[in-house]
Amino acid sequence: MTITSSDRMGCSVHLSEEGRSVIILDQRQLPNRQVYMELKTAEEIYDAIKTLAVRGAPAIGICAGYGMYVLALQEAAEDYDGFRTAMEKAGDYLVSSRPTAVNLSWAVQRMLGVIAGNTGKSISEIRELLLQECVAIHDEDIGMCARISEYGLSLIKPGDGILTHCNAGPLATSKYGTAIGPMLLGKERGIDFKVFADETRPLLQGARLTSYELQKAGVDVTLICDNMASLVMKNGWVQACFVGCDRIAANGDFANKIGTSGVAILARHYGIPFYSLGPVSTIDMNCPSGKEIRIEERDPEEIRSLWYQEPMALPEVKCFNPAFDVTDHELLTAIVTDRGIVYPPFDVNLKKLFEKDQ
Amino acid sequence: MTITSSDRMGCSVHLSEEGRSVIILDQRQLPNRQVYMELKTAEEIYDAIKTLAVRGAPAIGICAGYGMYVLALQEAAEDYDGFRTAMEKAGDYLVSSRPTAVNLSWAVQRMLGVIAGNTGKSISEIRELLLQECVAIHDEDIGMCARISEYGLSLIKPGDGILTHCNAGPLATSKYGTAIGPMLLGKERGIDFKVFADETRPLLQGARLTSYELQKAGVDVTLICDNMASLVMKNGWVQACFVGCDRIAANGDFANKIGTSGVAILARHYGIPFYSLGPVSTIDMNCPSGKEIRIEERDPEEIRSLWYQEPMALPEVKCFNPAFDVTDHELLTAIVTDRGIVYPPFDVNLKKLFEKDQ
Repeated sequence: MTITSSDRMGCSVHLSEEGRSVIILDQRQLPNRQVYMELKTAEEIYDAIKTLAVRGAPAIGICAGYGMYVLALQEAAEDYDGFRTAMEKAGDYLVSSRPTAVNLSWAVQRMLGVIAGNTGKSISEIRELLLQECVAIHDEDIGMCARISEYGLSLIKPGDGILTHCNAGPLATSKYGTAIGPMLLGKERGIDFKVFADETRPLLQGARLTSYELQKAGVDVTLICDNMASLVMKNGWVQACFVGCDRIAANGDFANKIGTSGVAILARHYGIPFYSLGPVSTIDMNCPSGKEIRIEERDPEEIRSLWYQEPMALPEVKCFNPAFDVTDHELLTAIVTDRGIVYPPFDVNLKKLFEKDQ
Repeated sequence: MTITSSDRMGCSVHLSEEGRSVIILDQRQLPNRQVYMELKTAEEIYDAIKTLAVRGAPAIGICAGYGMYVLALQEAAEDYDGFRTAMEKAGDYLVSSRPTAVNLSWAVQRMLGVIAGNTGKSISEIRELLLQECVAIHDEDIGMCARISEYGLSLIKPGDGILTHCNAGPLATSKYGTAIGPMLLGKERGIDFKVFADETRPLLQGARLTSYELQKAGVDVTLICDNMASLVMKNGWVQACFVGCDRIAANGDFANKIGTSGVAILARHYGIPFYSLGPVSTIDMNCPSGKEIRIEERDPEEIRSLWYQEPMALPEVKCFNPAFDVTDHELLTAIVTDRGIVYPPFDVNLKKLFEKDQ
């Protein structure tokens, strides 16, 4: 698989052709309007990340990498120290747009590391190295997604029905994405699948993003409400479940969008294999099990207010609005990573994954 | 338990005090506006049923019964044949508002049966008998719900967490309702429960109606998205699941709002008892199993369009929108009816329920 520049230019986040701005597809306006934004200033990049115009951990990282490069081009300081100080300030500012997004600070640190590691070089040489670094961040993600998609594709047969939850596609990552990567890669090769996309309440990423991505790619997708997954499985329409993951513990328990654990339990009940797909960077070997993963709770208004601009429930009604849940590793058939497919026992085999590469 | 007139007047459908109109709480405007409508003409009653201002099978039946009485008072014909013909025409008209609603035609037929069975009586005597009949329809439903609630209450302990799906409360029936009846009856007696109400996509009856009813009654209710039930159960917050039922087959399989079977599978996984609550009239002994229950599919727009008046998915995205699903009787702990609690084996014990009363 060749990773060419056209792969990068096809992503929802990329560098403009003349290389002086970041182009993003405004995810807030999907699926109704396909609007590209051109980000030039630090404020524009900050706002795009903060307001979720760009979302999805890898996509945010790619945006921040390109953003740092674009800002480096604009930086007036011609001496190394002035340049470095200005870029560190710019990096701090970008990171503050979503302080808990790990990929954001990781990408900014990678870019700052290039500056810190090249004290002897001219500003123009450093700018060239920064360009290589942000392109590398993007290319690495494309490669990671491609490998995950390739491994995932090996698990399913042409014509299979695949159920997915939330959004782990190209919009959130780069080309292919993770959980829906196998279906997109398959489509490229003329292999058709029938995908069922859970709408994924409360924020409806499955409806707004996943069904959009698959439909645009010409993949046969059917949108369902989350509570319809049981019937769809009972009808025999699903041969595998593919979901993303936010964090995988050392024993294979993993956190992902709220509702994932329910899908896993239904899949087990109906005898359907259930796979989590994500890069090795998602595996946290310092986290022994799902018990140690804290679940973020979000604004109850997300549940209360989605009825034609009117509240759906009385303002005093309590809502429990967890953003994620943890799926027990016993419900998991395998974990599909960019370094291969990991089967149970996960506590043993996840460890091997890291040993192999050291 | 005494069933007084104040029980009837407290229902979302009742006869006005002067007895010449039907009063309904407009369910379309809940939870944001508590608007009562006064229905006097056949057209007003027809529209209220057709446009779902009144909904829920028993509530529609009660509305139709009162409606027939109100129209009988207005009927000008003073001769029996003219009166009967006019009332049959009115009945046909009301039934055509929702032709598939069994309770609607059942209630209209009961009212017409009073006319047909009293050929010798004066119109004013028949009107008095019609009043008794529509009040009886209402009182019987109140009594049925009260008995179901009483049996249901015997299954739970003070402080228990109860998860419910969709709406099977007073709005859809009469006082107490079925699935949330035990919690409302408990509240009257000073017994508190913690109720988790699934919002129930796509039409959000759990958010708009169930959480409204429980909150208004002072019951501790927490609204969740359907896909959060797994986490709520995993957290140990649920000691029993109570759901309504649209149709129970002779083997205990039952159809209910889409998503019910998923809740049952989660409950089984987490070792939580799962109960279906409904009147004996819901049991169809001529339907051998869930396989014979046809699932109605509804307009895909219900899934596609709920994002602040904007579509949530591309117009060309396929949606699968089943209104109900069938829950396998093996997932069911017991069926709570107005004639008592039925435990497995359901094929044997449901039959006994009918033999007992014959």
